Amino acid sequence: MDARGLFQRLAEAEQSHLLRFWDQLSPEERAGLTLDLQGIDFQEINGFFRKATDVSRGSVEKMDGRMAPVPREVLGSVTRDEARVKSWEQTGLQCISRGKVAVVLLAGGQGSRLGVPYPKGMFDVGLPSRKTLFQVQAERILKLQQLAEETLHSKSSIPWYIMTSSRTMDSTEEFFSRHDYFGLDKNNVMFFWQGMLPAMDHQGKMILESKSKVSMAPDGNGGLYRALKNQGVLEHMQQRGVECIHVYCVDNILVKVADPAFLGFCVQHHADCGAKVVEKSHPTEAVGVVCKVDGKYQVVEYSEIAMETAQKRGADGRLLFNAGNIANHFFSFSFLKDVVEKYEPSLQHHVAQKKIPFVDHRGRLSTPDKPNGIKMEKFVFDVFQFAETFVVYEVLREDEFSPLKNADRQNGRDTPTTARHALMSLHHRWVLNAGGHFIDENGTRLPAIPSLKDRSDLPIKCEVSPLVSYGGEGIRALVKDREFQSPLVIDESGVHQLVRDGK
Amino acid sequence: MDARGLFQRLAEAEQSHLLRFWDQLSPEERAGLTLDLQGIDFQEINGFFRKATDVSRGSVEKMDGRMAPVPREVLGSVTRDEARVKSWEQTGLQCISRGKVAVVLLAGGQGSRLGVPYPKGMFDVGLPSRKTLFQVQAERILKLQQLAEETLHSKSSIPWYIMTSSRTMDSTEEFFSRHDYFGLDKNNVMFFWQGMLPAMDHQGKMILESKSKVSMAPDGNGGLYRALKNQGVLEHMQQRGVECIHVYCVDNILVKVADPAFLGFCVQHHADCGAKVVEKSHPTEAVGVVCKVDGKYQVVEYSEIAMETAQKRGADGRLLFNAGNIANHFFSFSFLKDVVEKYEPSLQHHVAQKKIPFVDHRGRLSTPDKPNGIKMEKFVFDVFQFAETFVVYEVLREDEFSPLKNADRQNGRDTPTTARHALMSLHHRWVLNAGGHFIDENGTRLPAIPSLKDRSDLPIKCEVSPLVSYGGEGIRALVKDREFQSPLVIDESGVHQLVRDGK
Repeated sequence: MDARGLFQRLAEAEQSHLLRFWDQLSPEERAGLTLDLQGIDFQEINGFFRKATDVSRGSVEKMDGRMAPVPREVLGSVTRDEARVKSWEQTGLQCISRGKVAVVLLAGGQGSRLGVPYPKGMFDVGLPSRKTLFQVQAERILKLQQLAEETLHSKSSIPWYIMTSSRTMDSTEEFFSRHDYFGLDKNNVMFFWQGMLPAMDHQGKMILESKSKVSMAPDGNGGLYRALKNQGVLEHMQQRGVECIHVYCVDNILVKVADPAFLGFCVQHHADCGAKVVEKSHPTEAVGVVCKVDGKYQVVEYSEIAMETAQKRGADGRLLFNAGNIANHFFSFSFLKDVVEKYEPSLQHHVAQKKIPFVDHRGRLSTPDKPNGIKMEKFVFDVFQFAETFVVYEVLREDEFSPLKNADRQNGRDTPTTARHALMSLHHRWVLNAGGHFIDENGTRLPAIPSLKDRSDLPIKCEVSPLVSYGGEGIRALVKDREFQSPLVIDESGVHQLVRDGK
Repeated sequence: MDARGLFQRLAEAEQSHLLRFWDQLSPEERAGLTLDLQGIDFQEINGFFRKATDVSRGSVEKMDGRMAPVPREVLGSVTRDEARVKSWEQTGLQCISRGKVAVVLLAGGQGSRLGVPYPKGMFDVGLPSRKTLFQVQAERILKLQQLAEETLHSKSSIPWYIMTSSRTMDSTEEFFSRHDYFGLDKNNVMFFWQGMLPAMDHQGKMILESKSKVSMAPDGNGGLYRALKNQGVLEHMQQRGVECIHVYCVDNILVKVADPAFLGFCVQHHADCGAKVVEKSHPTEAVGVVCKVDGKYQVVEYSEIAMETAQKRGADGRLLFNAGNIANHFFSFSFLKDVVEKYEPSLQHHVAQKKIPFVDHRGRLSTPDKPNGIKMEKFVFDVFQFAETFVVYEVLREDEFSPLKNADRQNGRDTPTTARHALMSLHHRWVLNAGGHFIDENGTRLPAIPSLKDRSDLPIKCEVSPLVSYGGEGIRALVKDREFQSPLVIDESGVHQLVRDGK
């Protein structure tokens, strides 16, 4: 396209300001900018902006009257339906052993709140093993393949589709390659990337982050659906005979990747789509809730809910809207296919108000101190509304959910420290439940719940490799009636830091 | 007593080592030590030691088989019995208006974990008003007296008995006097002090903290009962016609002092004794639980419970042992009298392993790096077992419980920051529930649950003086349909930081 054509296209889209520094650009900068602009479908994005901002002008208050809680009959709970969990798990393992299960990892974020210049999955939260999130998750898949094989005597694998963004694709692939796919067959690890959308000001003008570069951001985790189609991932799944897909987000250190109980629950209920949730702990907890809105399933974000609604309780004393979304979803392949092929285009973008660095009219980079524009995102859960059979699966937060979002700081939530503690605390419980004990430096047995007063080194340092145990199983022979000093590490080479046998 | 008599007494008690530096002491030091030793009943304390250490050698495991959860019929819950709360509150207010209610504050601790050299109640957690814990609690009593008077048209007062220790008595009294009892009638504020017990090594020998000074520590919050008797507090209550007593601990910034709903619940159920609890959030939460042991009510401390028991759940999915003790108790006067006069002497001391600084055989002060001795304590809840009618009252943690225990530090629990946040978050909800709104610096309304991503200044700063509202009531006229910028302070002189009226 010649420059004249480009000017023409931008004028028609009322985005001509993107070229206002054209005269000052070098030939290389002009070529780069031209290439970027050619990749943008201006009419489509202007349409996204109009639709998204129309919706976001709707009142927040209106949501509350339309909300209804998840009915008990579509809810499976590891605590309230404990007797059935084993059966669900068996069903899930069967699906895995028959090669019907795939996993999609949402890892397109850039870890900016965490303050690192690399993908979040590469983060090491400081476990005794120094394993990264990617490694922990890869090893859980490995172990699950092994468990399925042991249980059903049929060897199979779980394809792992990893969604990156254009900014994290190369470093993610390189990281996996460098670590030899953490023991997984590289043919079962597929990378793809989500799309990017330009940041826009409140008038719908795209924002320049330099004289020759449009400010772009990933299109939200709901960008998954477009990417699944555009990059042939759906087709790949179909060719492999995938029937169930577990989609999850990279930041949860406790994530049960391809959790067979969750899969089995969804399969037994013939669900198109399912969401794993944890009970919301208090009315103002900043977590989205799965519920019905106008009769259709949806995640209502915490910022959309009025206090009165957030505080509502049922007769059992629980919060009425307590199904806290933890970005762990189930899709049947046929539903996912419908979503990708039929429903995705009708999804509207959500608007996030952002402080977006921009070049001012003199070409100088300026960082605003209040939101000056928006990013447009789709969310992965926006497709719940299209499910005919939707189910909700409630698990325990302390067993399955500890997201890594922020850098360590005083009283910080969702930090490397809270993630590390959550994992070690869980593994400490595994060891106790399998009959092991911990002792202090004097040989005295520590209580199951040690005193916070006397120990600043809580939780007790304990890490069990996923290669040894997926969910606490299989360690009894290693720990029963034995006494350990912290830190205790149990991995494929054995039990380390063992002090002495118990009596 | 002459020195010979003293040597004789100590020899009989096998505590002669306390005098091993006698020859090196000045006459003043000898006099001081003699006075201290004369105040100690050696035979009694040796007996305490024998009984306490006998008990503590019993196995932890044994507890679990003897535990049974609180039956539903003795439980009142602000969430599950919401419809009855109003009636309980009315009963409580009636008791208050008839002068039947007294409050006992447990404030004998020394704030050593908090790292301050003065009583915890004098701590300022950094609220906009800079009020101390003592002031917040005093003002809640003032407000409650006023509410009772308004409701029942009968003026009355709530006597407040404040238990200090010999180390905090003077500074506490002086602090109240200097602040003019925070508006309370000084005749309704009574101070007394709990006893002290010597620290002992593992062989039962008392420990010297200097050549002429025995290491002493307060005798636990269960020292209350002895102190009530020894210092005539019980008699004082009787003279005033007190029938119900609320006992609580100073460190909880959200404490509903003399909570009329709790009092009314206990009174309607003809309870001797009651415990206010919050639901334990997860199996390893470090909180004691109210339950039955061998058929009698008791608090089982978190360090006494095995993991298997801590993890048990009922059919409703809740933890079976979920009645988390928050040191808020109800006593009928007649029960308290029985406790003090009949039962207290039979209570055994609990043993706390401690690192106790001591003088070595050369007279040099030494600080051990592991526990070298014990402190003996009674606990206020040890008397639950004697109640004929015991009830449990469950409230919401976010409304009523945020203890101050530790200094601020990364990922700290129960710190000045968490206490301040808990109070401001509660008051923020009060304002929203009364129809007020918050706006940001651009005039945009903030969601009820603001995003954590974009705001580092959470929670929204909001403080309502207890002189204006005891539990969220009475502020509608001040806030309804108005918009506020944070920080918002509502006190007896009005609404501050009001920006503009809503439309």
